[in-house]
Amino acid sequence: VSSLSGVSSATPTEEMNGAGNLMDFLDEPFPDVGTYEDFHTIDWLREKSRDTDHVKIRNKPTCYHSKESIWELIKSLLDAWSGWVVMLLIGLLSGTLAGVIDLAVDWMTDLKEGVCLSAFWYSHEQCCWTSNETTFDDRDKCPQWQKWAELMTGHAEGAGAYVLNYFLYILWALLFSFLAVSLVRVFAPYACGSGIPEIKTILSGFIIRGYLGKWTLLIKTVTLVLAVSSGLSLGKEGPLVHVACCCGNLFCSLFSKYSKNEGKRREVLSAAAAAGVSVAFGAPIGGVLFSLEEVSYYFPLKTLWRSFFAALVAAFTLRSINPFGNSRLVLFYVEYHTPWYMAELVPFILLGVFGGLWGTLFIRANIAWCRRRKTTQLGKYPVLEVIAITGITAVLAYPNPYTRRSTSELISELFNDCGALESSQLCDYINNPNMSRPVDDIPDRPAGPGVYNALWQLALALVFKIVITIFTFGMKIPSGLFIPSMAVGAIAGRIVGIAVEQMAYHHHDWIIFKNWCRPGADCVTPGLYAMVGAAAGVTRMTVSLVVIMFELTGGLEYIVPLMAAAVTSKWVADAFGKEGIYESHIQLNGYPYLDVRDEFTHRTLATDVMRPRRNDPPLAVLTQDTTTVEDVETLIKDTDYNGFPVVVSRESERLIGFVQRRDLTLAISKMKQDGVVSSSVVYFTEDAPQLPASNPQPLKLRRILNLSPFTVTDHTPMETVVDIFRKLGLRQCLVTRSGRLLGIITKKDVLRHMAQMMNQDPESIMFN
Amino acid sequence: VSSLSGVSSATPTEEMNGAGNLMDFLDEPFPDVGTYEDFHTIDWLREKSRDTDHVKIRNKPTCYHSKESIWELIKSLLDAWSGWVVMLLIGLLSGTLAGVIDLAVDWMTDLKEGVCLSAFWYSHEQCCWTSNETTFDDRDKCPQWQKWAELMTGHAEGAGAYVLNYFLYILWALLFSFLAVSLVRVFAPYACGSGIPEIKTILSGFIIRGYLGKWTLLIKTVTLVLAVSSGLSLGKEGPLVHVACCCGNLFCSLFSKYSKNEGKRREVLSAAAAAGVSVAFGAPIGGVLFSLEEVSYYFPLKTLWRSFFAALVAAFTLRSINPFGNSRLVLFYVEYHTPWYMAELVPFILLGVFGGLWGTLFIRANIAWCRRRKTTQLGKYPVLEVIAITGITAVLAYPNPYTRRSTSELISELFNDCGALESSQLCDYINNPNMSRPVDDIPDRPAGPGVYNALWQLALALVFKIVITIFTFGMKIPSGLFIPSMAVGAIAGRIVGIAVEQMAYHHHDWIIFKNWCRPGADCVTPGLYAMVGAAAGVTRMTVSLVVIMFELTGGLEYIVPLMAAAVTSKWVADAFGKEGIYESHIQLNGYPYLDVRDEFTHRTLATDVMRPRRNDPPLAVLTQDTTTVEDVETLIKDTDYNGFPVVVSRESERLIGFVQRRDLTLAISKMKQDGVVSSSVVYFTEDAPQLPASNPQPLKLRRILNLSPFTVTDHTPMETVVDIFRKLGLRQCLVTRSGRLLGIITKKDVLRHMAQMMNQDPESIMFN
Repeated sequence: VSSLSGVSSATPTEEMNGAGNLMDFLDEPFPDVGTYEDFHTIDWLREKSRDTDHVKIRNKPTCYHSKESIWELIKSLLDAWSGWVVMLLIGLLSGTLAGVIDLAVDWMTDLKEGVCLSAFWYSHEQCCWTSNETTFDDRDKCPQWQKWAELMTGHAEGAGAYVLNYFLYILWALLFSFLAVSLVRVFAPYACGSGIPEIKTILSGFIIRGYLGKWTLLIKTVTLVLAVSSGLSLGKEGPLVHVACCCGNLFCSLFSKYSKNEGKRREVLSAAAAAGVSVAFGAPIGGVLFSLEEVSYYFPLKTLWRSFFAALVAAFTLRSINPFGNSRLVLFYVEYHTPWYMAELVPFILLGVFGGLWGTLFIRANIAWCRRRKTTQLGKYPVLEVIAITGITAVLAYPNPYTRRSTSELISELFNDCGALESSQLCDYINNPNMSRPVDDIPDRPAGPGVYNALWQLALALVFKIVITIFTFGMKIPSGLFIPSMAVGAIAGRIVGIAVEQMAYHHHDWIIFKNWCRPGADCVTPGLYAMVGAAAGVTRMTVSLVVIMFELTGGLEYIVPLMAAAVTSKWVADAFGKEGIYESHIQLNGYPYLDVRDEFTHRTLATDVMRPRRNDPPLAVLTQDTTTVEDVETLIKDTDYNGFPVVVSRESERLIGFVQRRDLTLAISKMKQDGVVSSSVVYFTEDAPQLPASNPQPLKLRRILNLSPFTVTDHTPMETVVDIFRKLGLRQCLVTRSGRLLGIITKKDVLRHMAQMMNQDPESIMFN
Repeated sequence: VSSLSGVSSATPTEEMNGAGNLMDFLDEPFPDVGTYEDFHTIDWLREKSRDTDHVKIRNKPTCYHSKESIWELIKSLLDAWSGWVVMLLIGLLSGTLAGVIDLAVDWMTDLKEGVCLSAFWYSHEQCCWTSNETTFDDRDKCPQWQKWAELMTGHAEGAGAYVLNYFLYILWALLFSFLAVSLVRVFAPYACGSGIPEIKTILSGFIIRGYLGKWTLLIKTVTLVLAVSSGLSLGKEGPLVHVACCCGNLFCSLFSKYSKNEGKRREVLSAAAAAGVSVAFGAPIGGVLFSLEEVSYYFPLKTLWRSFFAALVAAFTLRSINPFGNSRLVLFYVEYHTPWYMAELVPFILLGVFGGLWGTLFIRANIAWCRRRKTTQLGKYPVLEVIAITGITAVLAYPNPYTRRSTSELISELFNDCGALESSQLCDYINNPNMSRPVDDIPDRPAGPGVYNALWQLALALVFKIVITIFTFGMKIPSGLFIPSMAVGAIAGRIVGIAVEQMAYHHHDWIIFKNWCRPGADCVTPGLYAMVGAAAGVTRMTVSLVVIMFELTGGLEYIVPLMAAAVTSKWVADAFGKEGIYESHIQLNGYPYLDVRDEFTHRTLATDVMRPRRNDPPLAVLTQDTTTVEDVETLIKDTDYNGFPVVVSRESERLIGFVQRRDLTLAISKMKQDGVVSSSVVYFTEDAPQLPASNPQPLKLRRILNLSPFTVTDHTPMETVVDIFRKLGLRQCLVTRSGRLLGIITKKDVLRHMAQMMNQDPESIMFN
């Protein structure tokens, strides 16, 4: 215990006994010291130890007096519980926003086709709630709901009405998308895209000011509604994660514990991402796993519990708003009545292969297109681009009933099992007249003309969706990728499902069908194929997507088909390239993202990566007691490094600490007002020598010196260095040999080295 | 690129150009170098870079020739896929073992009561499958099944028959438990307990040879069946995790990639733990989350996918064995017909409070008892202890129908909703004669005498289970804790549930019931209360247990009650102490487990923890070129450190590297056979000087020198040091100041310091 008594005198903040005549920076707290600049990476270790300071201050024993003590107690309790309070608030707000978005999208999507006479703010479905027609096709017959042509000309049918409706559909779509892109351009440029690549980068420790701001939240919510309603091939799921993260950031600012610590803030944001997925699909567990698998970088166990809490609150807030009008939590509710058979694994795996190929094609084509947009004239006309794509989408989508409706409705219908009451085209089977089975257990039947018709239309829809999604994702409007990807997979799945079903019906005697498909049995469920295809369509989100699907169906029975397809899809896509769409977009933007998944297996050493390289000028260092203020200013002016190592002397090159450029600039500009001149000597030592009064006043800067900089030896394998950077979230690391400072490795150096090793352009990493 | 060309010459393994006359250790590979001793901690960073070597060798470009090339290709493919193959094998074997255990337990539990006349190897349930009585109580009437008294005396009823059955029940129980404890004592002492504390420690990087061996696997499987069948208050869930991990370890030895790398092996074991929980509860997703939340230490994303795969395979293997005879995957299948109401959250939270208190009581009492066992004479008679506890359990359990049957059957019955066909005592309600509702929707009814009787018996069972479980867990037989904990919670829950139900029935007009419970409605489901209570009973496994429960019920509806109870339980327990039962047992055994969850928030610095302390003898170091073989041998003899830092010279104290004691011993004993004598100088430098032939042959040991030892400065906060130890899995870390070596911090030092800071006995950490 005796050794512990000497501790406190050595800790920086209690080191108050500096020489009185010295200018000692940070005697009083100075606001900006220890913060980061925009587009820079945070230092996780530093943030973590700052959080401890916060906890310490909270737990500090004080003598309480009556009133104050209660207030103190409440404050300290609130501080201890603030994590859960923030989660509750995030859950409530993101659930509410998701509900509002769902309702608005419903209404505006239907507005493109017609209007409700009884109340214009009703969507088609709400308008017809009073009538008894509940099936999909009969909805149209509800008298309160009028299509535009009927309202304007009185004629509901005929070529003229069709053309008028077609025209107005396009007009509305163009109006919505124009509004969306204009709002984004004018008010919040960060509101575009899905947001997930940037959130991944932010969670890994990057700073993008305003990306999760209030304006972004507001504009993204509004423009998301407009973008989805305009009928473009995009989903609201990705942007909802961004919206939830904005909520998280908003509530962080209420508590100093989170607003002042970039590390703690990122814990909250991880949980907010889980809440976002939770409301997007109505799948809280899937949301937590998504945050864990796909988005988060640093995910302590505490975050697991809190994410789960936030995801649950969000899901139940959404359910109490009940936007789907069925008090179901999930986006696509399905219930199948037949099990799957081993032989069906073959088509399921084929769907997985298709999903993997589609994923690869999409990533390659989309990245190529986005690169072209970035590098050519095209990028200068984002409004025009959005208008053009919306126009093309609307013109091509309207004639095909499967592309005209919203994508989530399409997926819903594709997932559906054909019950006895189903009247959609996809369920137009030729019924066996002497059928006397219960409604749930309908045997396989031959397809009617409606089904064949639907197959053609679905095939066209598939090609259309594949092509248009490639051009849509990456435009300057909010756009998610889940729903279009799932739609492509679901269409392919349903087509395969119907094909297998008809084969099984017409060829009972084939060996492959003989064992499990007797005549008159219900063996193949095309809806299940659609679901499996959808899971395979969203490549590389293996576990979380399977869990989401599992939450949708609420049963473990279909987990094997889903898993088989999802894993096949991942394997096929991995064979063509390891990078997912989010990583590709991160790379396209040059963000410094050190992927946890990339395995670094090259045999380079720290000495190969560190700067200065051979023939470079020597490393810019400060000495502990011989540098003047002028030297420091020159160094800051001449270089753009983010920090400087401090050594004992230039000869011995023994490392003392590391000082941040930002802190140094702040300190000097502050202290210059207090009488420090250019010829003043800067001291990083514990005690400065007593100088004669004639000498300029020295400047003591030990307070801003990081006395525990991270070091590795020059012989350390880069693999270990990469691992350390990843796990500890370092910003830079100093390289030594036998105690001598040799050089420095920054996160950017690591990323550039990794890019070089993978034969990519190292200059693509732009930020530090 | 030019800087990269110089790389390969610097990497240790290609450094073949040593001076010819030098004895250079490791010219050829030497088997034991780089391995660890028993009861020591591994170095994760080192294991990781060794894995890279493996990958490198695999990917090495070679010129293939016809036959060889195909074989090489197959080998490299197999190596790349070995991860998935191991998972498949683990899933298959652990699923099979779980199925066999289930069947055997079923049969042997029933054997205590009677025997099947048609085939003695049938359990009671299997015996009566042919008869039509399906409900629980009618089972007894099946003529093939005879109780022992009936078989031996011909009288099924009467006091004599009861006493005879009672006696034989006790006899069988004693026989089973005696067999179990003897087998464990004689063949595999590691097979006792739940195994989870040790597995946690092993996964965190500790070595316990034989803990996951073949013998342990075999004996644990057999004795688990005996222990569970003996009627003791223990479950098979924890031991199943141990069994699955043994399977994992077994299959690791088939692939050199896993058998030779302790880090990779632990990835496989994490996945195996998930498979174990998956088969224990039939909940694959819950299993993965359990592994993530409770067991694993280092859980990369790749492990997430593989765990999920292993868990799925295991679950489906178990299902195809179908031990429960109902083709249900889950252990307790429940289906409720009524939703829950907001007001019910109050009793649910009360159940959470009860669960938290029970958890705290259990941990404290059990640890106190285990400590007493360890320190007193009691520990010397494990067989007697088991026999005594079994005797007491059997004597007290038989008269009460709720403790006589197996604990999982009890939980099943408590979870059950009282349908119209249910004939158990718990469902003895007074029926409304003019009831004409569908069978699934039975309104709340007044309780009959059976229910009141059951309440008394349940209350006694609750007290009995609480007391006996405290003494059972920790005995020298396989014993899991999930099922007893769940049982305690479920009993409390069912009692509360019936109480609320009867209150709601008799006091419809009370304000709290008025809003949601009209007369004649079915508002309260006591089975749901049992489930919520069970979730609260297993304190601190918040997320994974809720997910397991969610998988059991297959619906999201009850996730809020479950979560509310589980989180309340956790909070209440945390208020009394942060440590879970597994952590407490780890501490009791003195294992070096650095918990990821413990937050270290003290303000000590590395300098306070490092050795040598003030007044200690100086740090034991080797110099790079002045130490003789004799010096090294003396150092090894005089100290018991696991490794020694190597410095340039004793004067400058500048660090070169770190050498492991084990490697040093191996190298010297090997090289002594090759002509090295005691006065030979040991060189750790790159080149040894050319010495005259008269001098003794020098020994070059650079190959076993770790050139990238981990260092921190003496000013580094201990919080950062703890974080580094945790995240990088270090074994030791050297402390420097301005490039000079000051001391060393080992994992044991860190743990002792943490114990000291928490006012615990630092001497309790025994291993390094």
